[in-house]
Amino acid sequence: MPSAILDAIYCRRSIREYTAEDVPPDQLHEIIRAGCWAPSGLNNQPWRFVVIRDAAVRRRLADQTHYGHIILAAPALIAVYLDPAAMYNDVKDHQAAGACIQNMLLATEALGLGAVWLGQILQNKDQVNTILDLPPHLDLMAVLAVGHPKHRNQTSQRKTVEELLLKEL
Amino acid sequence: MPSAILDAIYCRRSIREYTAEDVPPDQLHEIIRAGCWAPSGLNNQPWRFVVIRDAAVRRRLADQTHYGHIILAAPALIAVYLDPAAMYNDVKDHQAAGACIQNMLLATEALGLGAVWLGQILQNKDQVNTILDLPPHLDLMAVLAVGHPKHRNQTSQRKTVEELLLKEL
Repeated sequence: MPSAILDAIYCRRSIREYTAEDVPPDQLHEIIRAGCWAPSGLNNQPWRFVVIRDAAVRRRLADQTHYGHIILAAPALIAVYLDPAAMYNDVKDHQAAGACIQNMLLATEALGLGAVWLGQILQNKDQVNTILDLPPHLDLMAVLAVGHPKHRNQTSQRKTVEELLLKEL
Repeated sequence: MPSAILDAIYCRRSIREYTAEDVPPDQLHEIIRAGCWAPSGLNNQPWRFVVIRDAAVRRRLADQTHYGHIILAAPALIAVYLDPAAMYNDVKDHQAAGACIQNMLLATEALGLGAVWLGQILQNKDQVNTILDLPPHLDLMAVLAVGHPKHRNQTSQRKTVEELLLKEL
């Protein structure tokens, strides 16, 4: 069994502290490419991306969330959007965004990087579009903070399969 | 670079034709476990699962979607639900379901199996709950058809990163 895949799924953790080392654009593009290979309903690929490495822009974005310290600490951000012009079903397109983001998180593991999925910033998604100079119709799904992990001592918990499996027929 | 992860992300295809070989419960549980290790907002883990291998139940489910032939062909199905009692935000919980499902699809690859994410059946999600004898408040997110791939000659297309990257700051 090629356990690297399952290892990445089970061992991936949200990384919120980073070294000062930069993340070059080609690695950020690889993370986005991994996201793009998620499945989407009708293969509509509704996702769009913004890469942010500029420190001044990151400072402005940091003010839009309780987790601003993570945005300030991360050398790179990837904002994930849905383009309503490419969408066909809200629930399925939001699911597709989640599948895309999960691929991106796993790709950061594959590249030896760390990331965290930031969702609380959606409360100020209009302001985020203003800061990024994007048209208001684009719908922010999440911001990923990406960097080199300062450490890897994160732990996490999940319910067991037995708790979540409603029935077997 | 542990490219097995990126390989799985880039080479995974929707598998719609299966051999007659069964998929044992322990492999289906492993796929569900992989799904459970997706991130969710506030780590609320809103996902729930039903495993279906019974042929009579599969026949009844097949009548609920245009893709019934896939449901009939697959030796196993995993229905993915959200439990509203565990949800906190529709958009974020639907994203979490998508991240969970993507982990499950990648896990099928890791196990040498194949799967396809079926969403069209959501048009009859109330009937699906009736067939599975589940309370109506549980919200069907998708059905995964799982089996041993009959072949692996599937192809797929994606837009390029350049087409989907709105800007770099």
